[in-house]
Amino acid sequence: MKIIVDCFGGDKSPCANVEGALLALEQHRDLSLILTGDETVLREELTRLGYSGDRIELVHAPEIITGEDKPTDAIRLKRESSMMKAISMLRKEPDIAGVVSTGATGALIAAATLRIGRIRGIRRPAFCPLLPTMNGGIVGVCDSGANVDITPEMLLHQAIIGSAYLKNVYGIASPRVALLNIGVESEKGDDLRKKAYPMLKACADINFVGNMESRDLLSGKYDLVVCDGFSGNVLIKTTEGTALELLKKLKKDIYTKTRYKLGALLMKRMFMEERDFMNYHNYGGSVLLGCEKTVVKGHGSSDAKAVSICIDQAYKMSAGKMNAEIEAALANTASPSDHNGNSK
Amino acid sequence: MKIIVDCFGGDKSPCANVEGALLALEQHRDLSLILTGDETVLREELTRLGYSGDRIELVHAPEIITGEDKPTDAIRLKRESSMMKAISMLRKEPDIAGVVSTGATGALIAAATLRIGRIRGIRRPAFCPLLPTMNGGIVGVCDSGANVDITPEMLLHQAIIGSAYLKNVYGIASPRVALLNIGVESEKGDDLRKKAYPMLKACADINFVGNMESRDLLSGKYDLVVCDGFSGNVLIKTTEGTALELLKKLKKDIYTKTRYKLGALLMKRMFMEERDFMNYHNYGGSVLLGCEKTVVKGHGSSDAKAVSICIDQAYKMSAGKMNAEIEAALANTASPSDHNGNSK
Repeated sequence: MKIIVDCFGGDKSPCANVEGALLALEQHRDLSLILTGDETVLREELTRLGYSGDRIELVHAPEIITGEDKPTDAIRLKRESSMMKAISMLRKEPDIAGVVSTGATGALIAAATLRIGRIRGIRRPAFCPLLPTMNGGIVGVCDSGANVDITPEMLLHQAIIGSAYLKNVYGIASPRVALLNIGVESEKGDDLRKKAYPMLKACADINFVGNMESRDLLSGKYDLVVCDGFSGNVLIKTTEGTALELLKKLKKDIYTKTRYKLGALLMKRMFMEERDFMNYHNYGGSVLLGCEKTVVKGHGSSDAKAVSICIDQAYKMSAGKMNAEIEAALANTASPSDHNGNSK
Repeated sequence: MKIIVDCFGGDKSPCANVEGALLALEQHRDLSLILTGDETVLREELTRLGYSGDRIELVHAPEIITGEDKPTDAIRLKRESSMMKAISMLRKEPDIAGVVSTGATGALIAAATLRIGRIRGIRRPAFCPLLPTMNGGIVGVCDSGANVDITPEMLLHQAIIGSAYLKNVYGIASPRVALLNIGVESEKGDDLRKKAYPMLKACADINFVGNMESRDLLSGKYDLVVCDGFSGNVLIKTTEGTALELLKKLKKDIYTKTRYKLGALLMKRMFMEERDFMNYHNYGGSVLLGCEKTVVKGHGSSDAKAVSICIDQAYKMSAGKMNAEIEAALANTASPSDHNGNSK
């Protein structure tokens, strides 16, 4: 199994990416990695970390794509960047299974969509990050920001690719799919949701359980939530933001009284566990579903552990037979007018 | 000052509504209230609570609008309901300042829009609930669910009416207005956001500070966030849901170890304060902005205290000169084609 790690573009790049790569190699005996980026810097990092094995290959890429670069320009003009080199190798070389990147999101989506190619029938790839639920499980959110202007059919496709992902990579036999909405009743929502609801309900290849209000995201009642990229982005970032702000407030308030400090000392281990529980880095990156090959987008602020989890996700995804399953499900739902769905 | 309280339709109606009415009377010496609903039941409630004053008038309304009723049907067919009686009295009687209801949201929006009338230039009224920020302030979210399919112009109007509300009712001199988006850069977002951004920026009557990512909602950096009703609903309910789930989890985890229980005992007061801090009932209802008269929608699960806070909001709103200010601001931004804006 061979995976490429784009080592530049994240907030803690390249240190976190290189260290994360080494962690992943320890975890998977049959894994070898290609690191893209400034070769001199990468070699120095590997030396610093004491690596001398032969499971890492370095590919020199002197340029870096940043959030300032317009995605389409980045693809066209920064061919020598660590991200574009990674994507172009993934496209050309059949023995490479996937790419992990912590770089600019827009450029990565554009590069994956235009250079890697999509699964037949999929118009746009979609992100599917995972969040922890209160009963110890996980819930996927698809899409979390790749596509902000979408159609009801794209919501259906997100339900199909998200279900296949949770089934193949996380072993959830029949993922319970919900449609993010402003109420649970079937007739609720805007035009998009009203049109998508009956399509989701009619699809035999997914386990659609109805509408979900956002306050139930972490309840454990759902495995996958489908939504447009705009409200999915709001959903994910509000959850992260509220949890972080609350924990920050607790921490601050503890210091206002001696008895609170004493109490917190007794509860220190528990508070650390809560912090770990809500740390989204521990749940991997956003897998970009719908591409012909695996692309995992790590959070820009990923540390070494987070990068290693992203590599682990790419490893597990590539091992599955997910894409064939998705194609079959899409063929079942396709209407006659959809046959050119992939051409747009 | 005379305000109507719709006493049926909420989860804890009519008890919470009647008790909340009495709390509000204690708070405001110059306030008198009209309660709508089943007169016998209401009279029994007042007797049970020991009220014998002359500042409450009962108006008999035997029907109840529920969440099951289609809003347009509710207006047409349930004229004898507590909500429709309240709205129709508000419309007809000039000395009544506002209505507070904890009943069905859809019916209330429809009734307010079609029966009360809107401020000249406003196409659709919008909700503006408040949330607590981490630095002890508040932040308004407009709209949180009244309008799910909207235009860039409606976002601008929401910024204007929300600003006027925060200024007149909460004394915030120049409310910092942000546009909810998936990134802070000005070119981010879907078609709606891309069109709304320059309109918000060009408006001299508001203090537009740019895009906001949802994770910063509680940061205290913004006073008002404008968004479509769909993502605003997601924003509000995710914040409430995450906070509640986290506090629930903390509570559960405390019982797993004796030292945690001991620690929690020392911190009991602090935990109670955190719970109070995140209890959305303490921040009042969702005011429906853009109507010619005041309509406050309390949460369906409102208790007596929450109802009294809603009445207090209606009291303060009506005291202001908000609507004149809004009309002036709208006139400044109106393009020639908008002159019939109110006719739709």
